[in-house]
Amino acid sequence: MTEDAEVEVNLSPTSKSQQQAPHFLRDVIFHGKFKLLKALTPEENTHCQHGLYFQDGQRRVDYVLTYHVKKPGGGRSCRHSAHLLTENAVARSLRRVPHARDERLRRNQVPRPKDSTSAGADVELGCPGETFNGHEDHKAFRREEFEGKLRDMGLELEKDDTKIPGVGFVKIHAPWKILCREAEFMKLKMPTKKVYEVKQSSGVMEKISSLVSKALEPLHPHVEEHQPKNIKHLSHTFSREKQHLFDFSDKDSFFDSKTRSSIVFEILKRTKCKAKYSMGIPSLLGSGVYTAAYPLHDGEINQESAESNDRKLLYEEWANYGVFYKYQPIGLVRKYFGEKIGLYFAWLGLYTQMLIPASLVGVIVFLYGCATVDDNIPSMEICHPKNNITMCPLCDRVCSYWKLSTACGTARASHLFDNPATVFFSIFMALWAAMFMEHWKRLQMRLNYEWDLTGFEDEEDHPRAEYEFKVMQKSMCKDQKSPHKVEKLTFRDRLPAYMTNIVMMLLMIGVTFAIVFGVILYRISTKAALHMSSNPITRNHVQLTVKTTAAIINLVVILILDEVYGAVARWLTVLEVPKSDKSFEERLIFKTFILKFFNAFTPIIYIAFFRGRLVGRPGSYLYVFESYRMEECAHGGCLMELCIQLSITMLGKQLIQNNLFEIGVPKLKKLIRYIRSKQGAFQEEERKKKLMRYETDHFLEPFAGLTPEYMEMIIQFGFVTLFVASFPLAPLFALLNNIIEIRLDAKKFVTELRRPVAARAKDIGIWYNILKGVAKVAVIINAFVISFTSDFIPRMVYQYMYSPDGSMHGFVNNTLSHFNVSHFQDGKEPMDPLQLGYPVEICRYKDYREPPWSATPYEISKEFWAVLAVRLAFVIVFQNVVLLMNDVVDWLIPDIPKDISLQIHKEKILLVDLFMKEEQGKVLILESRSSTGGKENCSGSNNNNCTMAHPRSGLQNNNTKSF
Amino acid sequence: MTEDAEVEVNLSPTSKSQQQAPHFLRDVIFHGKFKLLKALTPEENTHCQHGLYFQDGQRRVDYVLTYHVKKPGGGRSCRHSAHLLTENAVARSLRRVPHARDERLRRNQVPRPKDSTSAGADVELGCPGETFNGHEDHKAFRREEFEGKLRDMGLELEKDDTKIPGVGFVKIHAPWKILCREAEFMKLKMPTKKVYEVKQSSGVMEKISSLVSKALEPLHPHVEEHQPKNIKHLSHTFSREKQHLFDFSDKDSFFDSKTRSSIVFEILKRTKCKAKYSMGIPSLLGSGVYTAAYPLHDGEINQESAESNDRKLLYEEWANYGVFYKYQPIGLVRKYFGEKIGLYFAWLGLYTQMLIPASLVGVIVFLYGCATVDDNIPSMEICHPKNNITMCPLCDRVCSYWKLSTACGTARASHLFDNPATVFFSIFMALWAAMFMEHWKRLQMRLNYEWDLTGFEDEEDHPRAEYEFKVMQKSMCKDQKSPHKVEKLTFRDRLPAYMTNIVMMLLMIGVTFAIVFGVILYRISTKAALHMSSNPITRNHVQLTVKTTAAIINLVVILILDEVYGAVARWLTVLEVPKSDKSFEERLIFKTFILKFFNAFTPIIYIAFFRGRLVGRPGSYLYVFESYRMEECAHGGCLMELCIQLSITMLGKQLIQNNLFEIGVPKLKKLIRYIRSKQGAFQEEERKKKLMRYETDHFLEPFAGLTPEYMEMIIQFGFVTLFVASFPLAPLFALLNNIIEIRLDAKKFVTELRRPVAARAKDIGIWYNILKGVAKVAVIINAFVISFTSDFIPRMVYQYMYSPDGSMHGFVNNTLSHFNVSHFQDGKEPMDPLQLGYPVEICRYKDYREPPWSATPYEISKEFWAVLAVRLAFVIVFQNVVLLMNDVVDWLIPDIPKDISLQIHKEKILLVDLFMKEEQGKVLILESRSSTGGKENCSGSNNNNCTMAHPRSGLQNNNTKSF
Repeated sequence: MTEDAEVEVNLSPTSKSQQQAPHFLRDVIFHGKFKLLKALTPEENTHCQHGLYFQDGQRRVDYVLTYHVKKPGGGRSCRHSAHLLTENAVARSLRRVPHARDERLRRNQVPRPKDSTSAGADVELGCPGETFNGHEDHKAFRREEFEGKLRDMGLELEKDDTKIPGVGFVKIHAPWKILCREAEFMKLKMPTKKVYEVKQSSGVMEKISSLVSKALEPLHPHVEEHQPKNIKHLSHTFSREKQHLFDFSDKDSFFDSKTRSSIVFEILKRTKCKAKYSMGIPSLLGSGVYTAAYPLHDGEINQESAESNDRKLLYEEWANYGVFYKYQPIGLVRKYFGEKIGLYFAWLGLYTQMLIPASLVGVIVFLYGCATVDDNIPSMEICHPKNNITMCPLCDRVCSYWKLSTACGTARASHLFDNPATVFFSIFMALWAAMFMEHWKRLQMRLNYEWDLTGFEDEEDHPRAEYEFKVMQKSMCKDQKSPHKVEKLTFRDRLPAYMTNIVMMLLMIGVTFAIVFGVILYRISTKAALHMSSNPITRNHVQLTVKTTAAIINLVVILILDEVYGAVARWLTVLEVPKSDKSFEERLIFKTFILKFFNAFTPIIYIAFFRGRLVGRPGSYLYVFESYRMEECAHGGCLMELCIQLSITMLGKQLIQNNLFEIGVPKLKKLIRYIRSKQGAFQEEERKKKLMRYETDHFLEPFAGLTPEYMEMIIQFGFVTLFVASFPLAPLFALLNNIIEIRLDAKKFVTELRRPVAARAKDIGIWYNILKGVAKVAVIINAFVISFTSDFIPRMVYQYMYSPDGSMHGFVNNTLSHFNVSHFQDGKEPMDPLQLGYPVEICRYKDYREPPWSATPYEISKEFWAVLAVRLAFVIVFQNVVLLMNDVVDWLIPDIPKDISLQIHKEKILLVDLFMKEEQGKVLILESRSSTGGKENCSGSNNNNCTMAHPRSGLQNNNTKSF
Repeated sequence: MTEDAEVEVNLSPTSKSQQQAPHFLRDVIFHGKFKLLKALTPEENTHCQHGLYFQDGQRRVDYVLTYHVKKPGGGRSCRHSAHLLTENAVARSLRRVPHARDERLRRNQVPRPKDSTSAGADVELGCPGETFNGHEDHKAFRREEFEGKLRDMGLELEKDDTKIPGVGFVKIHAPWKILCREAEFMKLKMPTKKVYEVKQSSGVMEKISSLVSKALEPLHPHVEEHQPKNIKHLSHTFSREKQHLFDFSDKDSFFDSKTRSSIVFEILKRTKCKAKYSMGIPSLLGSGVYTAAYPLHDGEINQESAESNDRKLLYEEWANYGVFYKYQPIGLVRKYFGEKIGLYFAWLGLYTQMLIPASLVGVIVFLYGCATVDDNIPSMEICHPKNNITMCPLCDRVCSYWKLSTACGTARASHLFDNPATVFFSIFMALWAAMFMEHWKRLQMRLNYEWDLTGFEDEEDHPRAEYEFKVMQKSMCKDQKSPHKVEKLTFRDRLPAYMTNIVMMLLMIGVTFAIVFGVILYRISTKAALHMSSNPITRNHVQLTVKTTAAIINLVVILILDEVYGAVARWLTVLEVPKSDKSFEERLIFKTFILKFFNAFTPIIYIAFFRGRLVGRPGSYLYVFESYRMEECAHGGCLMELCIQLSITMLGKQLIQNNLFEIGVPKLKKLIRYIRSKQGAFQEEERKKKLMRYETDHFLEPFAGLTPEYMEMIIQFGFVTLFVASFPLAPLFALLNNIIEIRLDAKKFVTELRRPVAARAKDIGIWYNILKGVAKVAVIINAFVISFTSDFIPRMVYQYMYSPDGSMHGFVNNTLSHFNVSHFQDGKEPMDPLQLGYPVEICRYKDYREPPWSATPYEISKEFWAVLAVRLAFVIVFQNVVLLMNDVVDWLIPDIPKDISLQIHKEKILLVDLFMKEEQGKVLILESRSSTGGKENCSGSNNNNCTMAHPRSGLQNNNTKSF
């Protein structure tokens, strides 16, 4: 209708290229009214569109399939396949569409003699003068079959010559009718013509919210979607029978490019070749019949021309470090990449936003620790020179007695992380996590509503190619035994894979444990060796050196194992042959999560809960391999060491893994691909000039799913919540990382990756459950960290149960037990007992044990049990109170935001109203009709045909009035 | 189409009535092909149908509204209203439908002069010669307006004379077209003509499942739905545009009576009178314009005629104690009462079924306790006569020292409930609860699928009448101040109600606490008084008497307060003026649950966790009111007392409240209503003979929601899970109760209540969350019961930490501390210190305290702290392990049963196939059409009209082929 109405030519002025290689391509975007003159010569046409449209300049390329062409060189290929391919290509490029379709339909009705063709292909195996093998030929035949099927489904295909050697492109276009049909099948919700006003909250609230939004104005990206809108289009599931509801005035933009490509992808998924087993597009890709399948990006990003496209807008307003302080244009991200990726970035954005208060409070808690370090009575007591407490030696033989006051620095430092504010902070963070989950649920609901996903149910998952292949294999094996058709893999088929899975998972976790144990041994042995050194400076820095090197070793091991485990998890999942992509993803995520989690947190958990607890006591220490004493914590408790380990692991992981790897590796891969394609002895410069959109996109990295992105963030979430009691600065570091991470990911999606097929999703799926699990575990771990790793409980117990004056004075003395040096085992006593300058009879050590002079010397004392009971009670109280508070938060904050639920309600009423008006219109027309003629037929009996009749003219009258 | 085709008369032979009054009505059910001859005289007509159809014997009564008629006596009423009413009634009863509708439509087009009529009503306020007041007149006018609106919506109404004085009936019928329209609006899923075969699992599994189903055959009710079916109709959302999909061959049964009534109810809800504020049916019912609104039951239950109806079938196969061992015919229940009630009974059925294994294991645990009572070393030690342990007196002054061996019986009895099997049982029950929740989720999914509820979203809730009234009030108040229209109640409007709520809730909980405290005082004082009695028999039975009477008092108080709290919760919720029915229900449930839960469990929690813990020690007992010593538990621990209290409360509640109240009260109410209606000096016998269906139903109790039913079960679920560690027989008692309860509820729904409007529901809503909460709390409470109330932990600690030979020998001695009798406070020592026949120097008491000869006499000992630490550790381990196991169960059992998810998948594919076939049919027709004529119009450009054209003839060809 509109196609012939407005015809304009828009050629951008040739601008001198100042940018890098692929950027001086000229791109003419056909947006809205700009239509290309049909009379243009094919060359001009091609040049102007740069591959976004078919040769005729009319039909958009919605999807591209690529395949391997054996013989390199532009357009030259084996005669046999060229024969088949070019016939179609020529037909399509010369003739107008309807004719082509007519021909197809005619072909359809007369079934093609498939068998004879395939037999012929076998006969014509080698083309004379060409090195052609049967395998390639077979693939070409598969392609031909598949493309025929696609044409049967109503898609339009085009192939043309490409300048890239060895790659053939099939461009796919979905015509309007097919789009409508599929949109109806997919139950897409589309905006109708009916608009309504969104009520703003009234009175004072309105003023406040408008003030707030004005204040936040500079934080919003310059994207039209973010302008406040009071008018919303009513959405309704697309249906061709209700098409009078929709605004078809601009058919080219009614379905945007994301929707078009996902519709084509839906058809591709459904279309199957009838080979030995039915092959869908995943199998075809897997077996190399096609090499890639992707939709096209919207256009160039670095073009200076005035033409704007969504990709360029995203590049400027989103994938840009300069706008790091702004909100993300989530609506636009969703419009370009689809709901699934939109949800990821919305989630990441919310997480980053939520980290702001958390890191603020974390910094305050840390500053509180700094400020109160001088008022801390235990560290004052330790540092006081008058406090002449003699401690038992830290190692056998070579170490001697030492004075507690030398641990002054450590004690003061540990107060920074071990003070009452930490308890508050871990409760705060547990609630924070609950709040985050709740806010995410709400945001998700809001996005679901704004993106018209309410009522959308999860899409059906097609079986994976590997699964179908396996079923086919099994079927073929069984065929000889029984005629029963095999339809699925049973538990027994998968048993070997499951067994491998369990064994490998246990093995990998064992490896993690072994490595942690190795690092412990490294620490113990190095410490012993350094203690023996005669250099006093070395001996002074023993603790720090050993701790830091061990942490760095841990970090390196974690980084290496992370990559290994990722690969192992993928391999194990492939072994399992899950049925659908969704199941594959979930199993992969589960395994990867377990392995990476163990990898990242095992050393930390060791330090938090086991280190310094299995030491024994002077006179009866515990030994590893009968010679190494188990390591103790410094006097201030293990909390500081936990903190060092945490900060090194977290920062190192973020800096090295996330940023270095994520920026570096894709660049490297791109380079490699460039170099490889250079082999064709083609002048790169020259080629790039003429590259089409689909060719440029071909050089981009394929989209590999969101799993790695989510996984990275979940592990970070673990660092932020799990041990937050010992490291209040974790949220701050996470925040800083994420501000970069968002833009980094955005850049990757906009510039480095092929455009992913837009996937619809209502939620972030399994990740939400994992997040919830981590938050739950965090509560328990924090409870244990506070009560067992920190000195909080012993201090409380001392203050309220044992302190003579209710103050902390004397606490240090109370925590130290007595040891009679004459009770040392032979050969374990210090070599230099007089190092301190005086003979030592009683030395002290940190534990709750009976003194040597009691009836049961060195037995565990009553204090120990009392402190233990209080510690355990604290865990119970903390865990249950925090979980209860989480539930209360969950219950208090409604899952659906108030305004959204009101709008949903309103929309439902409007919709019923709309239909009721339509009904009345219909009835009126029926009545008028029946009064003139068919009275008996229609109104008397409830006749099918009568109610079915479409009173279109009357309806449209009615509609024009009501809209 | 079919109406004139088959005409049959079916009059059941008049059988002599042997049953009670309302049962010898004769009912002719029009089922399937049975159609009534139109030529029958009106009297015969009426008689045959007994009010299930309109006077014409054609149109079914889908809904009934009743109103109050001032002047008793058949059909006579005020002339003013009679004028308006009878005109319509006569018109409708004389003319055929289409004419009446024509008239209505004509009326519609010429807007009625409403204002003048209402003014006229005000003028004609009093009819001469009649005692008529303006209020009644106003109501009649409202009714007239409302009924006019209903007719505008397309409903058909009929009023006729009734024999019940003072009650007028409006019968409503929804014609086919309206049903279709509303079914489309409500997005009802209906079965299509397309059937497919449901695959049974193949091979061995098939044989096993067929064997199992054969074995379970006698357990299935004799309802056709339960015959195994291999064929299922594909369902699709009803749409008039897709009506070729549906089987309309029998229009009368396409929408069943439940669906019809819910459609009418939907229209009723939507229709509003424009009074001062818009009044829907709830407001009209609330303000007495109508007195009741209900759909009709399907027919008589006690009829002996061959005609069967769903109600009769339900009565025979479901609401019958004789079939207590059978499964419920849930499909039929849903078909008759709708999904919401169907879900309740499905839930109740599953719960009862799940109770079977639980009670089996419970009985085994109990029997294990019985069997091992003689091998129990601690009780053997207590009972052994050689063990001459002298205990400290149980009360001041009047009691004397006593020998531990006298507590032999109690110790042996407490072993029944306090043995290692109990620990296993409470873990089992926690898992059982998790399994129950999982199974319910699965069953719910299965029912959702079978009942075609997949994809159904919660229905919109209309505002409640009270809410609208309140908003109107507020609006009127504000009108004088500002022109702003008030649309909702803000937090500030509700603040007083919220405050009242909080205060009242706290007050009620306070009352509960006070009563529990009162019972404690009763126990203490009575015990002291009885101890003083000189009668030795009285003194011997002191313990038992006091315990039992106290428990009975508690029970009575609980029963009374339960009723009070129910009323208070309702009153408080009304105060809050919640917006929608759903919100009202949720708030009411929340409050009722809290109050009833506290009421039922406070005394039990006191006994479990506080009793015997705040006793003090000999020489420094704790006193209430300075004279009463706090009560101790018997030597075997408090577990036995907990068990007694639990069993009395639970059994008493179930026997008295559930069964007595539930059977008795409705019978009483029915009787009262009969007696009241008798006042009209009407011969009951005679009246009943002629009573119409809608009149009979009017005498039934209105349906009051499922809240009380669920609440009863949830409290029971609490008894079964919360303290199961102390009362392993609870599941058995619950099972016995529920077997009766199901049939009792069924009887109530089938015979005692008016038919409820079928409500669609996907789940049991808030109840699921409450169940989950109870299950969670149960884990914690059981952990505490095992570790603190039972002697399990002290026994373990003794055995593994203190026992010299690793056995339990010496445990009793270990748990008893020593007291030097010379340390008694003055005036507290026993009056008769020589009662045992020898002077006592050291008496023993149950506690972990230092002996008098230690450095810190009577201080808490190290053992105490050790036991406490182990107890707390047990709680942590138990809670987290069980919660983890719950999560694992949750994760292992998929929420959607495998076969259902496969079938859903299959249905989706079938549906797409079906539509694709249709599409191809359409395309073929289009092609053939375009090749003959309109080629340029259709295939060239993507023309609207072309894709819209309905190629009906071609489609139908296609369909007949494919179905």
